[in-house]
Amino acid sequence: MEMISIGLLGLGTVGTGVVKIIENHQDKLMHQVGCPVQIKKVLVKDINKQRAVDINVNLLTTDAEEIINDADIDVVIEVMGGVEETRDYLLKALRNRKHVVTANKDLMALYGSELLTTASENGCDLFYEASVAGGIPILRSLVDGLASDRITKMMGIVNGTTNFILTKMSKQGSAYEEVLKEAQQLGYAEADPTSDVEGLDAARKMAILSTLGFSMKIDLDDVKVKGITSITEEDLGYGKKLGYTMKLIGIAHREGEKVEVSVQPTLLSESHPLASVNDEYNAVYVYGEAVGETMFYGPGAGSLPTATAIVSDLVGVMKNMRLGVNGKSAVTPQYEKILKEPSEIYSKYFLRLHVKDEVGVFATITSIFSEHHVSFEKILQLPVKEKGLAEIVLVTHQAALQDYEDILVKLRDLQAVKEIKSSYRVEGSSK
Amino acid sequence: MEMISIGLLGLGTVGTGVVKIIENHQDKLMHQVGCPVQIKKVLVKDINKQRAVDINVNLLTTDAEEIINDADIDVVIEVMGGVEETRDYLLKALRNRKHVVTANKDLMALYGSELLTTASENGCDLFYEASVAGGIPILRSLVDGLASDRITKMMGIVNGTTNFILTKMSKQGSAYEEVLKEAQQLGYAEADPTSDVEGLDAARKMAILSTLGFSMKIDLDDVKVKGITSITEEDLGYGKKLGYTMKLIGIAHREGEKVEVSVQPTLLSESHPLASVNDEYNAVYVYGEAVGETMFYGPGAGSLPTATAIVSDLVGVMKNMRLGVNGKSAVTPQYEKILKEPSEIYSKYFLRLHVKDEVGVFATITSIFSEHHVSFEKILQLPVKEKGLAEIVLVTHQAALQDYEDILVKLRDLQAVKEIKSSYRVEGSSK
Repeated sequence: MEMISIGLLGLGTVGTGVVKIIENHQDKLMHQVGCPVQIKKVLVKDINKQRAVDINVNLLTTDAEEIINDADIDVVIEVMGGVEETRDYLLKALRNRKHVVTANKDLMALYGSELLTTASENGCDLFYEASVAGGIPILRSLVDGLASDRITKMMGIVNGTTNFILTKMSKQGSAYEEVLKEAQQLGYAEADPTSDVEGLDAARKMAILSTLGFSMKIDLDDVKVKGITSITEEDLGYGKKLGYTMKLIGIAHREGEKVEVSVQPTLLSESHPLASVNDEYNAVYVYGEAVGETMFYGPGAGSLPTATAIVSDLVGVMKNMRLGVNGKSAVTPQYEKILKEPSEIYSKYFLRLHVKDEVGVFATITSIFSEHHVSFEKILQLPVKEKGLAEIVLVTHQAALQDYEDILVKLRDLQAVKEIKSSYRVEGSSK
Repeated sequence: MEMISIGLLGLGTVGTGVVKIIENHQDKLMHQVGCPVQIKKVLVKDINKQRAVDINVNLLTTDAEEIINDADIDVVIEVMGGVEETRDYLLKALRNRKHVVTANKDLMALYGSELLTTASENGCDLFYEASVAGGIPILRSLVDGLASDRITKMMGIVNGTTNFILTKMSKQGSAYEEVLKEAQQLGYAEADPTSDVEGLDAARKMAILSTLGFSMKIDLDDVKVKGITSITEEDLGYGKKLGYTMKLIGIAHREGEKVEVSVQPTLLSESHPLASVNDEYNAVYVYGEAVGETMFYGPGAGSLPTATAIVSDLVGVMKNMRLGVNGKSAVTPQYEKILKEPSEIYSKYFLRLHVKDEVGVFATITSIFSEHHVSFEKILQLPVKEKGLAEIVLVTHQAALQDYEDILVKLRDLQAVKEIKSSYRVEGSSK
């Protein structure tokens, strides 16, 4: 090969980072790949816009076909985002035998399987390391580094925005709404933060991670999702007292042949490796039967970290080109997907209730738990400001989700229960 | 390929783990590689010894040549340890066109370059992920995951024994000797702990890591080493008060074209990601110009974690066999090694002195620092039990190692300085 030519779809912050890295690290790329790398064309919306990177205006185009159909372009890097249109572009690019590198988690969570199959049919590579936890080479580690192990549990802090918000709430004792505004001002949260704070972004990443880690086709719909918008300072305070830190955790758990995948606010024991992952950082904790506990930590987003992952994927594609082995590294899922029923999903739970401060209420409540064979690790009754009410805070031992949900229904029906203030999954042991 | 045959050199705890994983994960290996994998021969010292794994006694041999010269054996896995004899075996195996997977850090730190060259000349793979931080796929992450980035700093807790000892000393407030005994009883330290506690084991791993991370041939002799044997409870106590945790840290730092590599007890700011890596766990912190801060955490040793890394390397070899691309993935060092001079190595330092409690002593001492343009982040004078003495504890701002060493020489010569109690490198900011 005399030269490898890249077509870039998108020139936002990540695209700009890709251009910078390819320019600045030309000698390193050359050393690894054995030939120069050039960016031949870049798809943009507006050719005349001011850009944060010095790029020849002749390289810019507003017509994706000019990239997808350019016979000289070897690799298409997709950093434009979006789903349906982008999917069409990438399918066409793969059919035109261009390798693809993408950072698009939405696309991969929804159409990853179709795109990977198309890539394989056309002898092309499709790499997407940057789609999960930008700066952390987690997908490679799952596929190669832990290739011989059986992964049974993955827990991820895979959304920087929510981790930033929860860290601030916890450190400052501030309310959610207040910290969200701060995060928006600092650029850590978008004007419309829905996808982040409702857990959807994290769910997409967990679908991708669990598909790879369990070798099982997990769809986005399989991931149960709960966001962070209803978390209060009180919850964080109680958590802290009990030795827990609140994190938005994606959990993928395999037992035997069955799996569960969810994203939800979780009270994490302070001694858990994920508990000290703060601010906008991401981390993925992986438990393998043989290796035991491992964790991968780093920036989850950001222009340069994400661009690093993309260019590392590009290096992978180019090394494969040199060796003539593109399109052969993907391993199709080995197992049929079997999701756990709610009666098979076990966890500990934190529950906070306001109840009428009357004789017998405490006993009535605890008896509902024991009817469902759920016992307590900790239970506290505390006075509250409002007259005639008491607060009950409890942490259960391991309980089936089905039982726990049945209990919640019964508690809501009780006259004596004024309000279920909050309920969270708990991981690890309290103090 | 109908079948891939393995020759195993050594059947200690790690070798036993390798046998177990290959047996237990036969279907996963088959799925990834496309053909069965068998262990054909195993080199042992004593054929009749009781073993923790059920293995056909006919597979065992006491003659390495039976493995090295067996034309049917595709891959040699080396878990016997040792250096000179092992080197001969592996060189022969490579010349006989057998791929090699090794967990031998001593060997790789001393003869890695020779072995890799021989592998490449013979079209063979030589993989050694298990030689550094057993359960953490760090070498792959450096070579592939961060392929496009320029790594400027690596900091590693790469020895489980010393991390276990320092964690216990810190949590229990116990003395080094006492905790060492406990570690020996629990099997976390060997009867002769020299290689661990003097930092030699960590130094070998840092030589391997920095060679890969900086693409520069770093020899074991280039790594400055100091162990943990002289660390006292007092030092840990002062560290804690100032917001630091004591860790044995391997530091590899590149500035411009020059590098420094060392292993030494280091007071680490509690907010540093490595500060919460406790007990026998390992972690490698990597700073890349583009990606920023990342960290890889996991078990550093142990039979199964190390065996996982070995079998993952084996999968890598077998995938390459299937694709016909063995011996082509190694990248030779790109840069000439240039080591920093002591005048170019900058760090903060913690120093604890006992001085005569006389007028002017404090001023004399601080004036020595200012002569060398070293200023203080923190300086405390405290009374000590012994009459007529005072204790001075100080943390410097960034200082050149040369200056700091010159200062130490001058302090030792001072009449007023009774004893230099301790001196450590400091990373991060104090409280």
